[in-house]
Amino acid sequence: MRAVVMRDQRLVVADVPMPEPGPGEVLVRTLACGICGSDLHALRHAPEFVAASRRAGSRFTMDLARDVVMGHEFCAEIVDHGPGTARRLPGGTRVCSRPALLRPEGPLTVGYSNDTPGGYAEYMRLTEALCRPVPEGLSTAEAALTEPMAVGLHAVAKARLGPDDVPLVVGCGPVGLAVIAALGLAGARPIVAADFSPRRRALALTLGADVVVDPAETTPWQSWREAAVWRDASRAPALPPWIPGPPVRPAVAFECVGVPGVIDQLMAAAPRGTRLVIVGVCMQADTIHPMLGISKELALQFVLGYTPEEFAATLGHLAEGRIPAAPLITGRVGLDGVAQAFQDLASPERHAKILVEPAGG
Amino acid sequence: MRAVVMRDQRLVVADVPMPEPGPGEVLVRTLACGICGSDLHALRHAPEFVAASRRAGSRFTMDLARDVVMGHEFCAEIVDHGPGTARRLPGGTRVCSRPALLRPEGPLTVGYSNDTPGGYAEYMRLTEALCRPVPEGLSTAEAALTEPMAVGLHAVAKARLGPDDVPLVVGCGPVGLAVIAALGLAGARPIVAADFSPRRRALALTLGADVVVDPAETTPWQSWREAAVWRDASRAPALPPWIPGPPVRPAVAFECVGVPGVIDQLMAAAPRGTRLVIVGVCMQADTIHPMLGISKELALQFVLGYTPEEFAATLGHLAEGRIPAAPLITGRVGLDGVAQAFQDLASPERHAKILVEPAGG
Repeated sequence: MRAVVMRDQRLVVADVPMPEPGPGEVLVRTLACGICGSDLHALRHAPEFVAASRRAGSRFTMDLARDVVMGHEFCAEIVDHGPGTARRLPGGTRVCSRPALLRPEGPLTVGYSNDTPGGYAEYMRLTEALCRPVPEGLSTAEAALTEPMAVGLHAVAKARLGPDDVPLVVGCGPVGLAVIAALGLAGARPIVAADFSPRRRALALTLGADVVVDPAETTPWQSWREAAVWRDASRAPALPPWIPGPPVRPAVAFECVGVPGVIDQLMAAAPRGTRLVIVGVCMQADTIHPMLGISKELALQFVLGYTPEEFAATLGHLAEGRIPAAPLITGRVGLDGVAQAFQDLASPERHAKILVEPAGG
Repeated sequence: MRAVVMRDQRLVVADVPMPEPGPGEVLVRTLACGICGSDLHALRHAPEFVAASRRAGSRFTMDLARDVVMGHEFCAEIVDHGPGTARRLPGGTRVCSRPALLRPEGPLTVGYSNDTPGGYAEYMRLTEALCRPVPEGLSTAEAALTEPMAVGLHAVAKARLGPDDVPLVVGCGPVGLAVIAALGLAGARPIVAADFSPRRRALALTLGADVVVDPAETTPWQSWREAAVWRDASRAPALPPWIPGPPVRPAVAFECVGVPGVIDQLMAAAPRGTRLVIVGVCMQADTIHPMLGISKELALQFVLGYTPEEFAATLGHLAEGRIPAAPLITGRVGLDGVAQAFQDLASPERHAKILVEPAGG
């Protein structure tokens, strides 16, 4: 079958072996697969990514001397059932799945593995038990957004929002937009969102941000402060006279950029007691100044992925129209267009999410 | 009066002006003042310390071109009452106080200020309302430990321990020992503590650690894993077969070293979901690998100081013998011995806490 292969830190279209479904697995045809920012980072920083995974104790890391087919945000169609399957979902069913194969020796990542292809390929194998049918009225393209949108739901759940918290979302790429959508579902208002790109700021408003800010003009924390003033003055805590007012509500900030330096910048300007949720995936070493965290008693919560329940809930939200995610899709390419799409995604003005359609292009 | 002055990043004994108590302030004679690791860091890394304070938005930072008299862990004796004082405590009363002057223009740090001397001086001024009398039976030396021990109480409160959490304390200097004492008071068991120094490991046991580990022989997390195994197997969560057992209880780790690199090391080896409480005061830039945090969904809570209630509670714990802190005191010097004591404290084998007694030496 044809696939886009990561080889020597480059993307090439190649013929690779057709995957064979093992026990409890199904063979699927990839209908659409989103290009994730993590894939861009993984291509550029592959050695650091692998080194950090090893250091973190992961037993399943990529061998960069061998091919990897990335792609973990997919909607696919069941083609065949492997041995020992329940055949609950017939051939032709459109499905979404968390990008993992549940194997007796441990889970195998779909999209960052040498041993099973991800969604930048014509076919994949998936664990039958993880496959969820796509509801009738939901388009294949939007169903492929289940995975990235679930990341937002999870990040907001891990933030453990208090009723008065005012969120700041820094970076309005797909991850930031997913967080904004999830904050809207959680009823956290007002939502302040920052991005240098006018197009991404417009998308932030579409996804539910109340205030958007261009960091080239105003600092995100300045806009946040204006939005976070207590409207009901009787609920505001009394401030000592030497603290410049007015009092503001508690801050929770979502780092959705994932490049070195952003965490430290957020720490420097954050109000005292801010909780920072690190959703962006920075694969390089990063520099922080602990004194910034210490002097203001900041908290950092790193997050990854989502629970099975959050994944299923996100598919439901998309199907019911509670997450208006369709405008995120700014491009579609076939396998031959993937390498160029990786280049194009470096320009935030043109794109948010590009879908790979292996049968198209 | 005589004082130890930080001048050009060196400590010198000098004559400085006698402080005059302002409205609501008392003049006190310093009886004993502990040397804090933060003072060692502040002397060595003064420019970074000031730069980080400025970047964090603090309006009160030291001017290193001018003298600073450090010392913020003190027990003192009331000598005189300034204007507008309630004179609740008569002259001669031994007191402890949080190291801050409450001024109308904002609080002024005692110990890191150009404008008011800290405890490495014969006299200080303190805010009358913050002064707490030292209970009769408590020695002056132990009363001077109120401040550093309160840091431990606060760190443990900010850790928001769950009933099953097993703590790891990394670094058994005074900060780590204070955390160990507070963990004991909180009933968190077993307490695992790591330090390269045999003397500090012995102190850790005295303060209430259940297991001590020499990182030169065993990694702290390895010892922690052995101590954190569920004794009641029925309460342990079921582990998937590919996770090497046995199951362990949730981890909370206290970073009490405060030098670059330790946070990243702890992140690399920490079990999934660990909460790291950063109590050590690292004043330099530090490198972390966010992927370590992301891949295991770690949380970092930076902490500083203590609340007024925690300070008062600590004084009570010391007076009632609930914190056996006396063995921490490993040396006493006069003002002339402070510079040498700063040198000596670099060797963890010889010392934990050295008290400065301005009238002694």
